[in-house]
Amino acid sequence: MRALVFDGQLQFTRDYPMPRVPADESLVRVVRAGICNTDLEICKGYLDFRGVLGHEFVGVVQEGAMQGARVVGEINASDGTCPTCLRGDATHCPQRTTLGIVQRDGAFAEYLTLPTRNLHRVPDAVSDAQAVFVEPLAAALEITERVHIRPTDRVAVIGDGKLGLLCAQVLQLTGCDVLVIGRHEKKLAILNQRGIRTTTDAPAIKEQFDIVVDCTGNAGGFELARRLTRPRGILILKSTFHGAQAMEFAPMVVDEISIVGSRCGPFAPALRLLERKLVDVESMLSAEYPLARGLEAFERAGAVGVLKVQIVIGDG
Amino acid sequence: MRALVFDGQLQFTRDYPMPRVPADESLVRVVRAGICNTDLEICKGYLDFRGVLGHEFVGVVQEGAMQGARVVGEINASDGTCPTCLRGDATHCPQRTTLGIVQRDGAFAEYLTLPTRNLHRVPDAVSDAQAVFVEPLAAALEITERVHIRPTDRVAVIGDGKLGLLCAQVLQLTGCDVLVIGRHEKKLAILNQRGIRTTTDAPAIKEQFDIVVDCTGNAGGFELARRLTRPRGILILKSTFHGAQAMEFAPMVVDEISIVGSRCGPFAPALRLLERKLVDVESMLSAEYPLARGLEAFERAGAVGVLKVQIVIGDG
Repeated sequence: MRALVFDGQLQFTRDYPMPRVPADESLVRVVRAGICNTDLEICKGYLDFRGVLGHEFVGVVQEGAMQGARVVGEINASDGTCPTCLRGDATHCPQRTTLGIVQRDGAFAEYLTLPTRNLHRVPDAVSDAQAVFVEPLAAALEITERVHIRPTDRVAVIGDGKLGLLCAQVLQLTGCDVLVIGRHEKKLAILNQRGIRTTTDAPAIKEQFDIVVDCTGNAGGFELARRLTRPRGILILKSTFHGAQAMEFAPMVVDEISIVGSRCGPFAPALRLLERKLVDVESMLSAEYPLARGLEAFERAGAVGVLKVQIVIGDG
Repeated sequence: MRALVFDGQLQFTRDYPMPRVPADESLVRVVRAGICNTDLEICKGYLDFRGVLGHEFVGVVQEGAMQGARVVGEINASDGTCPTCLRGDATHCPQRTTLGIVQRDGAFAEYLTLPTRNLHRVPDAVSDAQAVFVEPLAAALEITERVHIRPTDRVAVIGDGKLGLLCAQVLQLTGCDVLVIGRHEKKLAILNQRGIRTTTDAPAIKEQFDIVVDCTGNAGGFELARRLTRPRGILILKSTFHGAQAMEFAPMVVDEISIVGSRCGPFAPALRLLERKLVDVESMLSAEYPLARGLEAFERAGAVGVLKVQIVIGDG
């Protein structure tokens, strides 16, 4: 089958082997998939992954209990039986594989497999292009899943990339006072249209915030986030970037700051928000490419000012 | 008056000026005071403090509403009127001074002053030597004040210094399963006598914990703490040490770890625990010195294997 494979470098191939389908998994024909910053980081060496990239997708079940259904899929395949899974932390199962990220071929291919329990039917009101945003939208919802955001909280989101824009939209649904700090007027305009305050002038911000979300995807974001977090406030890390960063611990203890790491989130509420049109994802779609032009798509996705790039693989 | 003063270096003097007593403060004649690791860090340059050191004390009110009462005192003097104070975070008041730490002379002197509302009467059942432990015991209680520790949690405390021993004792009162990782059999024996499991063999620990408390007071503790924290677990920082440390952010996001800074805690529950004899502090008293031998006391407090050193200043 056709696929975009990372093997030390990214390449397009027409004869990648079809996946075998284990008993508890389904075969999904991929319709459309999105490029995430994690894909770009993997191409720089993050996690040392080899195989088909891609973990944001919508597809149609070809073989399995939900045959014929249009679906999206949670990306962590867990064993479901270990102590970690049984205490409700299945996305942290030590035996897990992760679609296009850890020891499992991903979505930039004609077909993929996932455990049947990972699949979610997509409501008719949600388009294919929208459905591909379910995975990153779920990651944004992991913030409100992990941390109690109060309607009275002052919240700063740092970063106006894809994840920053989704986090800001999810956070504003709580009624809290959100300020997004970014670099690109054009990206921030998407939020302004939804009544969310934005700024490109970080040094001018003198106030501090109850909650600060670092979505910059780079080490520099942390320092700003730390400065903007009030004593006893919560700094939420959404960025997975490659490498270490120097950190002063004493001021964190003195100010009693909490730092909370947050990763993959729940799909069902993400589908509900899209179905109810409470989050705008279409404005974030910068470009579409066919699978055969995948390398070009990756180049575009890494360019400054570009938001989501999707790869169109099959018919819906 | 006699005092131990830090002025770039620590010195004992017999003619330090008596403190002036502001309208809302009380004058306290100091009976006994304890040396804390923070004092040792200040002597290495931490926080750039100048003045009388010391913030753990018991004394008798000489002038003020509680005249004649034996008291301990919360160390942060806040304005009580700013937004930070009004939302209940008075220990983080941006205008605060802190006894013997930030712009306020401390307890290694014959007299000190504190806001009257900071003072707590010491119950008769609590001795002077015990009362000096109220401040660090309160700091240990700040863990359970900030984080919900469940009776079913597996908890690791790293560090067998004064604070580590107090934290372990406070944590075991929740009923949780505590393991303390230290370096000194003699210190750990204090905990073993109270039925708390300990080990000196950190590399042999293969399990992970729901809650990990870093009380090592040095940068190396963090790395071990991070390794022992399970996915979605909480790493509590109690150490205020000087300097920065390299930290990898991506694994924290992937594992959704929370890091919680924790500092000064509530005095009233610390006094209740001491009155009810639920925490053993006497076993932690390594030595006593008169104020005139304060420099010797500091040297002893910084030696390997030594726990609490107290300075006896006046009569109870």
